[in-house]
Amino acid sequence: MTDLATDLLNGSRRALARALTVIENERSEAPALLTALYPHTGRAWVIGVTGAPGTGKSSLVNAMAAAYRKTGKTVAIVAVDPTSPFTGGAILGDRIRMRDLSGDAGVFIRSMATRGSLGGLARTTRDAVRALDAAGFDIILIETVGAGQSEVDIARAAQTTLVVEAPGLGDDVQAIKAGILEIADVLVVNKADRPGADNTVRALRAMLELGHPTNSGRMVNHHGQMMQTPAQMDEKAEFATAQFTASHHGEEAGAEVWLPPVIRTIATRDAKTENDGIGDLLAQIEAHRLYLSDGERLRQREHDRIDIELRDRLAHTLMKNLLNEVSSEYYESVISQIQARTLDPHSAVRAILSAR
Amino acid sequence: MTDLATDLLNGSRRALARALTVIENERSEAPALLTALYPHTGRAWVIGVTGAPGTGKSSLVNAMAAAYRKTGKTVAIVAVDPTSPFTGGAILGDRIRMRDLSGDAGVFIRSMATRGSLGGLARTTRDAVRALDAAGFDIILIETVGAGQSEVDIARAAQTTLVVEAPGLGDDVQAIKAGILEIADVLVVNKADRPGADNTVRALRAMLELGHPTNSGRMVNHHGQMMQTPAQMDEKAEFATAQFTASHHGEEAGAEVWLPPVIRTIATRDAKTENDGIGDLLAQIEAHRLYLSDGERLRQREHDRIDIELRDRLAHTLMKNLLNEVSSEYYESVISQIQARTLDPHSAVRAILSAR
Repeated sequence: MTDLATDLLNGSRRALARALTVIENERSEAPALLTALYPHTGRAWVIGVTGAPGTGKSSLVNAMAAAYRKTGKTVAIVAVDPTSPFTGGAILGDRIRMRDLSGDAGVFIRSMATRGSLGGLARTTRDAVRALDAAGFDIILIETVGAGQSEVDIARAAQTTLVVEAPGLGDDVQAIKAGILEIADVLVVNKADRPGADNTVRALRAMLELGHPTNSGRMVNHHGQMMQTPAQMDEKAEFATAQFTASHHGEEAGAEVWLPPVIRTIATRDAKTENDGIGDLLAQIEAHRLYLSDGERLRQREHDRIDIELRDRLAHTLMKNLLNEVSSEYYESVISQIQARTLDPHSAVRAILSAR
Repeated sequence: MTDLATDLLNGSRRALARALTVIENERSEAPALLTALYPHTGRAWVIGVTGAPGTGKSSLVNAMAAAYRKTGKTVAIVAVDPTSPFTGGAILGDRIRMRDLSGDAGVFIRSMATRGSLGGLARTTRDAVRALDAAGFDIILIETVGAGQSEVDIARAAQTTLVVEAPGLGDDVQAIKAGILEIADVLVVNKADRPGADNTVRALRAMLELGHPTNSGRMVNHHGQMMQTPAQMDEKAEFATAQFTASHHGEEAGAEVWLPPVIRTIATRDAKTENDGIGDLLAQIEAHRLYLSDGERLRQREHDRIDIELRDRLAHTLMKNLLNEVSSEYYESVISQIQARTLDPHSAVRAILSAR
């Protein structure tokens, strides 16, 4: 085992910080480090927090961290900004957090910005969460900006995913919601003291009734792709609605389907109100944890998560190997032929793979 | 050559619609169809239009299509919604468009929603653009919602990329802008009659001065990844600022660097004003076309585009082949070991690749 891993497992925060740098920069020591840490993972509860800009995610994450600390739990925050290769925003965010949560050894904060590809960021985030897990944090909060595929990938590292909305963020926010709803375990309407909060809550509930996929059947096929044909969506919508109706009427205690609750919070930088909904939010996260822990659900979810990660890492490694095997002269000549339109991209793929 | 390709090339709109369905559903005939069409591509000018929800992209695209039609150019619109596997939004969008642009044989409109993976959507969008190009459209407009990696991938199919903003869409829209600015050739502040438009224009100009990457040096490395270390960003920022200052002062006529102009438009569904900025926008798109056509720039950009597409298709095919070679029993046993924490994901990748 590497010294760094030993020190990290013994509780050294300095070793943890160095380990995260090794992971973030994908240094050559990273795989051995992660192999050493991996058997010590699996104890933390990992919570993903995502949503559009302007929803007040950072303040919410700070408030959640403070609330978890009051219950004696240690908290690590990973703030991931997939929208920008600039580290400026992340660094600024750190400073504000530091001010709010500083001087508490039970809180650890790390920002990660896009250094390489976005796929790389999802990979390194997963590994950073493992290092924090092995370091013994009870709660790991992963905060991401936005609502694209990169956030979905990053959210997949979490056991409970929060999707944060806020009232009045524009007229076709609906479009974003439809996509992001699928990854939500708990929906949070933050800034709930703003006008329009009731409408936002109502709209989210209506969309949930329409077609939230069941957690047990997260629609991922053997190729790690979503498999939602319109017909399947319809089937699921009917199923989810039926379940929703059932649990809504209190007819079924241990319902098969987790329907994301919609929680109102008021977590703004200056809000110090007691009645800010953070307690409700933590209770719902705990309810989701208990739901997943019941029977095979957590195991199934972890299985799917590992499946997706494996495919991603396999594709990454296969490409690295291929590019080592094919000479760059040959590869460039193929591009030239495609540009000259004497070869099309589909035929080019066959040609490159058979040229190895 | 397939009959479908022949009919499409002979101008049949019905064949075009069928070809797009074959492409969108990745049917087995798709590769042969695309091989037949590919030599007939390369004439259209492809314009990507992306931006956050609420910016009025659809209305802008409609207004652009109408303006191009007035100059006698034929226009195809591909509306891509990567945020949602629901087709509802896309279909609704189509209906509104149809009303505005209906009855004109020089306009063709097609919506694409996420059927499979988002990576698949970027692939099928590129191929759909090829079919429209081969069918002879002068202008192809690709409209996407959002600002994540999927939109960036889709925007890569375009020669000129417009990023659309609107005044007053929330307080940390800045974060999104930083990422999306890198793909912008022309910035559009739509809804420019709204309060705050001046601020939005100013903020965008300030961010452009700060660090817009040069088009000639789009920071893409041999692995199709962005290569922006903070140090590189600083270097580029200085370079871009120097260039900006030079061109701003009119000291350099044929500047090496294209600095995205910021254009104000008022394209809302009801606006029928003549002074809506669409003319300015089309003029800037034409200026960008001329800029790219000067020397090696277009060739270089096409080269990078093909490079990225090839890597994507190669990775996709390599994974498909690997999953055919590895038995699902073995693959599942690896997942089980990872879940039991007797094997870590990094070692698992090595094991699977050597088990073939």
